[in-house]
Amino acid sequence: MVPHVVSRWPVWLFRWRAAYTPGASVRQKTWAGMSRAPLWGIVGTGPLVCRHSSSTSSRAPEVMLTHKRYPVQRLPFSVVSEEDLAAFERMVPGRVITDPEELEASNVDWLRTVRGCSKVLLRPRTSEEVSRILRYCHERNLAVNPQGGNTGMVGGSVPVFDEIILSTALMNQVISFHDVSGILVCQAGCVLEELSLHVEQRDFIMPLDLGAKGSCHIGGNLATNAGGLRFLRYGSLHGTVLGLEVVLADGTILGGLTSLRKDNTGYDLKQLFIGSEGTLGVITAVSILCPPKPKAVNVAFLGCPGFAEVLQTFSSCKGMLGEILSAYEFMDAECMQLVGHHLQLASPVQESPFYVLIETSGSRAEHDAEKLSNFLEQVLGSGLVTDGTLATDQRKIKALWALRERITEALSLDGYVYKYDVSLPVERLYDLVTELRARVGPLAKHVVGYGHLGDGNLHLNVTAEAFSASLLGELEPYVYEWTAGQQGSVSAEHGVGFKKKDILGYSKPPEALHLMQQLKALLDPKGILNPYKTLPSRA
Amino acid sequence: MVPHVVSRWPVWLFRWRAAYTPGASVRQKTWAGMSRAPLWGIVGTGPLVCRHSSSTSSRAPEVMLTHKRYPVQRLPFSVVSEEDLAAFERMVPGRVITDPEELEASNVDWLRTVRGCSKVLLRPRTSEEVSRILRYCHERNLAVNPQGGNTGMVGGSVPVFDEIILSTALMNQVISFHDVSGILVCQAGCVLEELSLHVEQRDFIMPLDLGAKGSCHIGGNLATNAGGLRFLRYGSLHGTVLGLEVVLADGTILGGLTSLRKDNTGYDLKQLFIGSEGTLGVITAVSILCPPKPKAVNVAFLGCPGFAEVLQTFSSCKGMLGEILSAYEFMDAECMQLVGHHLQLASPVQESPFYVLIETSGSRAEHDAEKLSNFLEQVLGSGLVTDGTLATDQRKIKALWALRERITEALSLDGYVYKYDVSLPVERLYDLVTELRARVGPLAKHVVGYGHLGDGNLHLNVTAEAFSASLLGELEPYVYEWTAGQQGSVSAEHGVGFKKKDILGYSKPPEALHLMQQLKALLDPKGILNPYKTLPSRA
Repeated sequence: MVPHVVSRWPVWLFRWRAAYTPGASVRQKTWAGMSRAPLWGIVGTGPLVCRHSSSTSSRAPEVMLTHKRYPVQRLPFSVVSEEDLAAFERMVPGRVITDPEELEASNVDWLRTVRGCSKVLLRPRTSEEVSRILRYCHERNLAVNPQGGNTGMVGGSVPVFDEIILSTALMNQVISFHDVSGILVCQAGCVLEELSLHVEQRDFIMPLDLGAKGSCHIGGNLATNAGGLRFLRYGSLHGTVLGLEVVLADGTILGGLTSLRKDNTGYDLKQLFIGSEGTLGVITAVSILCPPKPKAVNVAFLGCPGFAEVLQTFSSCKGMLGEILSAYEFMDAECMQLVGHHLQLASPVQESPFYVLIETSGSRAEHDAEKLSNFLEQVLGSGLVTDGTLATDQRKIKALWALRERITEALSLDGYVYKYDVSLPVERLYDLVTELRARVGPLAKHVVGYGHLGDGNLHLNVTAEAFSASLLGELEPYVYEWTAGQQGSVSAEHGVGFKKKDILGYSKPPEALHLMQQLKALLDPKGILNPYKTLPSRA
Repeated sequence: MVPHVVSRWPVWLFRWRAAYTPGASVRQKTWAGMSRAPLWGIVGTGPLVCRHSSSTSSRAPEVMLTHKRYPVQRLPFSVVSEEDLAAFERMVPGRVITDPEELEASNVDWLRTVRGCSKVLLRPRTSEEVSRILRYCHERNLAVNPQGGNTGMVGGSVPVFDEIILSTALMNQVISFHDVSGILVCQAGCVLEELSLHVEQRDFIMPLDLGAKGSCHIGGNLATNAGGLRFLRYGSLHGTVLGLEVVLADGTILGGLTSLRKDNTGYDLKQLFIGSEGTLGVITAVSILCPPKPKAVNVAFLGCPGFAEVLQTFSSCKGMLGEILSAYEFMDAECMQLVGHHLQLASPVQESPFYVLIETSGSRAEHDAEKLSNFLEQVLGSGLVTDGTLATDQRKIKALWALRERITEALSLDGYVYKYDVSLPVERLYDLVTELRARVGPLAKHVVGYGHLGDGNLHLNVTAEAFSASLLGELEPYVYEWTAGQQGSVSAEHGVGFKKKDILGYSKPPEALHLMQQLKALLDPKGILNPYKTLPSRA
């Protein structure tokens, strides 16, 4: 599994990994008001805190251990003993990994910002094996870090200390697929791209698609409630997932792998686990509804004179394209300058304050092209759009998508990047960028906004020559407070994990955080499942 | 509120209500194996069991009190006192209803099969008022029955004993609607049809539609996780609901009324309350995503030579109609005979073993008509369909829908009806009907199958001249066991309520039922919210 994570990400991401350390930028400020010394003092005094490994990886600088960088204290879990290893060996023979080199890639997140020091990784093949492992760990008070493809953005998929890594990599079997209903049932460790291929051969598609699809596991996608590129069209996993099998902290197997679109027999328990990041149970199998494969895909790339026009174009396109609209993305002029400057990508339309990428997916190519073309005629004629281009062949479609998808890469080449991923009411979405630009002035090189406008999801990025505490002070908590002021979400699609657990209060009231703690205590009373994650440390 | 329930249902339903007593048919068998005497003995011995009211309603026979018909025992809640009424009067002045005539319609379900004997109904206008009421009831140990439009099918919306009825009828304000995103925020007591009109004027539609839309409240829709006519296209409420405000049993207001498509800041708590039928909290306000209003709607009505062809036609139509498909309903030949015989509705196509109704909703009439017409050409040419008709004008569309929608009415005119609403894998969906038909033989007049094939939802109905214990013995638990054998759901869209709580074990494993009980105990430790409902009595 591990080589996948490394090999399937494009080369530029490695450069970006080295340049970008969002954890440091975000956390330093968040914890600026806390008394740091005692926490740092405590960390490292226990017998269990591990030393830096002697990894000789030459591709990037060594990642600092999480407990060295962040003020986090190991909880009093047991330490894995030789007897434990022998017991695991009996449960999953030949699939108990203790070699430090092999463990390295599972101890470090793919952004190379956080790092645990687990001494053992287990590779069960079945839910029963997961059940036996968790029952044992629960009795022994051993902490467990469930891990899928390790592609998370918030440090949720790697251990913080020495948690046992429970990998779903070998739970990769498709259980069934129904050609009529489009319902796929599979184990949690299936790689998203492989599932996509599986169902596409049968004229369906997966209801979600992600940049990390070559590595991420479907179980991990569900555990983090992944958004991604098909969200606008096919909606949330809370709607498309039909059933789950979950192993609870004490080893209980909670069966619920129904292949039914409708089931109103009591509480919809599976919903609890979607987005709970492995802290309430380990998802071991999934039943999910796949939409029919579209026969035609088109992409339009447009220039808009202002953000008001971006919004009006969205309204217009929802009306005229309706059921075939599958993406509505936007980027500002500075984004285009960055991809032009750093990646030599040329804009296919004349220079504009804003750009919009619209994708359609439908069942009749000529109908879709006609709809798009009529729509373009109207928005060009009314001045909402000043210039535009339409792609129907695969090569040009990819080129247009690259302008939007490679913004992250261009940013990483621009210097140190402060990254935010927020949900906001669409009409205020860009105000945050404008106001922040005015606020930080010359402290920043660029303040840019882009993202999934159709989902109300803004990616706000600020670049500077190097990390600057004074710039950070201007950004945080301002960005979070501004977002909270609009009743927005400080984590739109990336989740909470280790890195965002202490900013939840900006988006959730105390009563909700309290209920989260109560649910955690109910389902995992010893707190062994993915500790130090998802829940605020001081709720 | 109450007159709505009565006046907005069509006349035939009243006839049906009188003829159909599903509770009796289902429950008698379910509890046949239990020792009934002690339970019946206990009921009625307490000081709180109420006598039959002296209702003089002339439209239907008086409904038997629930605790007289079913073996249910009142739990030791407090009894509403004069001091309590005075306290309520201070909380919701002028909105404390104690008049027995006014209470009557809220004590009886709309199917007229169950009946409570509540002495007081409260009509709060705000979440704060609901909070004060629940805090008080929690302290006083008073049981509460949240009630929306009282249109539920399983006895979940009326009291079983003397629970206080907490009506959402006056919580009927639209809070906001965003013309760009289509996000509606409103109070829980808004009537679905009124919300539909509100958003349709702004070129959107509600993501759900129901026969009861003229009476049902959006809060009740969510509390029961209503399915309905738009489910195939717009999916589950678990996907379309963006936020909820809920008042917990102890009066805590759990705010979560976000208007965001994406929010990954921790556990998605709202999901707990969708489908929990008011047993975990009272939904007081809702944020929901509305799809754009389709500009064109078409309906095709087809005859198929067998159920295999019904399935193949579904596959074919998903491929060729794709994104514009909005309904795929089926009915068997006996259904058509019944609507012909009892309602004088003529089939628009030649006699066939099965009929299919297909609806499309799209943004370009000519495109949709062309897709449908090409699809019809193919299925007719390949023999999947033997005859068909296509409607594009509103009048004919309604006439075609009537054939499907009025089956229930025709059944009620055929005699005593045993009704089942199950989810099954589509490929086995009709086998249950065939096998049951063979099993019951001449004991039944008709055994018919119809329903939302696109959602895997079968409505299985059996008619007889009159109620027959021997026929019931052939039907149950056979239908439930058969459904469980296919990993189906014994309640597809109607929920659990009072009537189905003891058959959940057919669709949910013991671990799931146990977790349901744990969640109930966590969120409502005194069990005051909608008691005697949703959770198995003996789990």
